Amino acid sequence: MAMTALPEITDTSALYLSVQQFYARHMHLLDSGRAREWADTFAPDGTFTAPGLDAPVRGREALATAVEQTHARLAASGETHRHWHGMVWATPAADGTAHVKCYGMVIAVTADGTPRLHRHCLCEDVLVPAPAEPEGWLVQSRHVTPDAAPAGH
Amino acid sequence: MAMTALPEITDTSALYLSVQQFYARHMHLLDSGRAREWADTFAPDGTFTAPGLDAPVRGREALATAVEQTHARLAASGETHRHWHGMVWATPAADGTAHVKCYGMVIAVTADGTPRLHRHCLCEDVLVPAPAEPEGWLVQSRHVTPDAAPAGH
Amino acid sequence: MAMTALPEITDTSALYLSVQQFYARHMHLLDSGRAREWADTFAPDGTFTAPGLDAPVRGREALATAVEQTHARLAASGETHRHWHGMVWATPAADGTAHVKCYGMVIAVTADGTPRLHRHCLCEDVLVPAPAEPEGWLVQSRHVTPDAAPAGH
Repeated sequence: MAMTALPEITDTSALYLSVQQFYARHMHLLDSGRAREWADTFAPDGTFTAPGLDAPVRGREALATAVEQTHARLAASGETHRHWHGMVWATPAADGTAHVKCYGMVIAVTADGTPRLHRHCLCEDVLVPAPAEPEGWLVQSRHVTPDAAPAGH
Repeated sequence: MAMTALPEITDTSALYLSVQQFYARHMHLLDSGRAREWADTFAPDGTFTAPGLDAPVRGREALATAVEQTHARLAASGETHRHWHGMVWATPAADGTAHVKCYGMVIAVTADGTPRLHRHCLCEDVLVPAPAEPEGWLVQSRHVTPDAAPAGH
Repeated sequence: MAMTALPEITDTSALYLSVQQFYARHMHLLDSGRAREWADTFAPDGTFTAPGLDAPVRGREALATAVEQTHARLAASGETHRHWHGMVWATPAADGTAHVKCYGMVIAVTADGTPRLHRHCLCEDVLVPAPAEPEGWLVQSRHVTPDAAPAGH
């Protein structure tokens, strides 16, 4: 690509870009059933909270197990699920974490290749800096709120 | 994240990134009914043009009112709308503005949580630099063209 | 936008951003029927491989012809197709190429404006550096795998 003068880039921009990269890898791991590698993109004590759960799923072992079960169930049903994150709104917090609010879309594809829009949700993550990780982040906490009635802010 | 030598980044890249950030916040404000804050992401005399409108909606007051009405109507119907921008193609113009051509997808979710693909459109924005704004941009004009018959370029 | 100290940006980040820009333009060219310009975003001997094809489509002439035929067929049927790439996972290779794994979604819009989710696939590209190109890349090879049964990694 052409070399030009270095642009004005804000710290927020670098944050935003690394978060996008993080989610891309994160979702490929999830959807291809690489449950252990996916769980390793959470902090060791990371949590996943959603309305359908009795309690948050906490820690990599529990996260991996949950995804393995889901993937086995999908395989048995002949469906593939694909997760997209979009409209990723990332805000740096004073403590070095990143607060992300984004949309999550789940596309289900049946065995004959027919896709359908399966779920849409609001996803709120707190990401913690992890310099040793490929993109520099781990998920400390995730709150998923499936869309239904119109939400406030 | 790992520190390495600064890469070759073009001005276009910085532009592209800040525009993505701008749209993320813009859509969260829109879809959560924060109509006044959303309208403030337009220039004071910003315009919104779409085929179904008798005339362009012009100015923050009119833009906010239009979104408030839409949000109230959706709330009454029990539906949530979620707007995604994608394939954001941003080109810097000589006058400092950014000319953006992107896809817009509206996902509607009924009260029982069932999502459907509601609309797909082409969105053409002219963004003006606004250094005091969080991402550095405001919408000067937006033209929305819903997809129907195959379009030329 | 605000000027701050230059952030830590990795080479991977610059790669990721230019690849995103590349795909945005690439898809607008494809979907608006600018077949020759789209074909020019492939390397001269670039290839396109998909399960439904007897052999890979190879070279710009063949790529452009294939897209012209598809676009004419869609125009006759009154449908518009829109391609979205998402969850773009780009990895630099030692030889200077970029290996990309991403999701591809095709949205079909009928003449009356009704959109539907038409296809979902996994897209694997090898991009080669092309400093003279707007975003610095050309597609050397593309493998498209439509989603059906759950895939391994």
